[in-house]
Amino acid sequence: MERLETHGCFGGTQEVWKHASATLGCEMRFGLYTPAHDPGERLPVVYWLSGLTCNEQNFITKAGAQAHAARHRVIVVAPDTSPRGEGVADDPAYDLGQGAGFYLNATQAPWAAHYRMHDYVVTELPALIEAEFAASDRRSIMGHSMGGHGALVAALRHPGRYRAVSAFAPIVAPAQVPWGEKAFSAYLGPDRTAWAEWDATALLAGAAERLPILIDQGEADSFLEDQLKPWILTEEAARLGHPVTLRRHPGHDHSYYFIASFLADHFAHHAAALQG
Amino acid sequence: MERLETHGCFGGTQEVWKHASATLGCEMRFGLYTPAHDPGERLPVVYWLSGLTCNEQNFITKAGAQAHAARHRVIVVAPDTSPRGEGVADDPAYDLGQGAGFYLNATQAPWAAHYRMHDYVVTELPALIEAEFAASDRRSIMGHSMGGHGALVAALRHPGRYRAVSAFAPIVAPAQVPWGEKAFSAYLGPDRTAWAEWDATALLAGAAERLPILIDQGEADSFLEDQLKPWILTEEAARLGHPVTLRRHPGHDHSYYFIASFLADHFAHHAAALQG
Repeated sequence: MERLETHGCFGGTQEVWKHASATLGCEMRFGLYTPAHDPGERLPVVYWLSGLTCNEQNFITKAGAQAHAARHRVIVVAPDTSPRGEGVADDPAYDLGQGAGFYLNATQAPWAAHYRMHDYVVTELPALIEAEFAASDRRSIMGHSMGGHGALVAALRHPGRYRAVSAFAPIVAPAQVPWGEKAFSAYLGPDRTAWAEWDATALLAGAAERLPILIDQGEADSFLEDQLKPWILTEEAARLGHPVTLRRHPGHDHSYYFIASFLADHFAHHAAALQG
Repeated sequence: MERLETHGCFGGTQEVWKHASATLGCEMRFGLYTPAHDPGERLPVVYWLSGLTCNEQNFITKAGAQAHAARHRVIVVAPDTSPRGEGVADDPAYDLGQGAGFYLNATQAPWAAHYRMHDYVVTELPALIEAEFAASDRRSIMGHSMGGHGALVAALRHPGRYRAVSAFAPIVAPAQVPWGEKAFSAYLGPDRTAWAEWDATALLAGAAERLPILIDQGEADSFLEDQLKPWILTEEAARLGHPVTLRRHPGHDHSYYFIASFLADHFAHHAAALQG
């Protein structure tokens, strides 16, 4: 492990680390915000999953998260969005390959060799964080767009592993929208029965716990009607009695200006669950 | 004028505008945050001046300013740091030419043709803002590094024009440090008597009002000892009885992580003066 950046921030420290990931077979970077804490103290961890084209920098530089993390005394871990590097398969499109890992475990060539972001985010990264930093095993997860999809799927597939889950403008039903159809076809192959394991809406019926889901969605989001369609999830949740709070915000788009505007509420929601 | 961006943000709107500047003889961009307000209402304006290499994007994407502006109900205007474009003189170095206007009016070729950032920031831009947007004539000014220098000089040269002034890691005595010596030599020529008009420390003795100055400075700032030297200003201020509050913060560097950490205090300081 190597620390690439360190910055004092809201009384704590914003760092960027690089490490060799066994799961992904490449070097990976992640952002780590640690609030001020006592020696030996262990703080809960919020995992943030970013959207298409992002790396570990977007959330830590643009969202204003550190103020909330410091106030609630939680660590924030923000990984990259895919495996990276010259030996890692890629595609010229922004929505496939590097920067577009979709937080799943790929089964198809050439992706299966490295693209195992689900296992990385759910298993390898928390083990590293809890071993090397001032982190307890109390975890929660949130994300944006493709990362909102990743957060919902991680929580739904692993009951008990996260104490809270929320998302900004998530892809709630990737198997039913163009971004997801393209990525799943490449990473998982044409058999759509394999897709259901990576689709939050499809996972909802079999969920072993009814962890409440908080979603914020901007109504001026240019991806709302074609790619996001949060009503697909809320209708299924209503049918099943799964608690979902969807807040729709006029005038807000898909940008970090939208995320920053409502991030305080997400941190309050997570902190209550992490510290309860 | 053309609006290039608009984003809902903390109940208001973050925009980016482009306009033809008569003062600078080129097209200029600025960020404009406007909180929610009633029709016909006029809000005070905080001007933010960014540092070397920045444009109108850095502050609006990285500082978390909109939360504070919304809370205090003030407009925030963030201009670019120099004239721009193919017809505008430039230099390959990061600390001269485009991206490094130093908020002064140049007198030397080839810079004098366009480099009049002081007049642009102090006169042309406020006139535009107050004519075209929901802005009152209550103004304050703050900035970072080169922009901290710009804010201090603007306030000291124009008594009564700003109700508050503050800075993050400002260049307080450009005539005495390498960044300033290089830029002033190019923009103003070798006669150092002309430099005093653009040096906050040199201007302090002749200041017609004793507007209090708030400065935050990180102690882990790699430019502190060679380029910033805030003690040059505080020693002169102490001699003159000019009120300066300098807060030094261990572990904080020159980045936006530092700015974000203390920006709430600056907005509170400015809002009290703007609304008092």
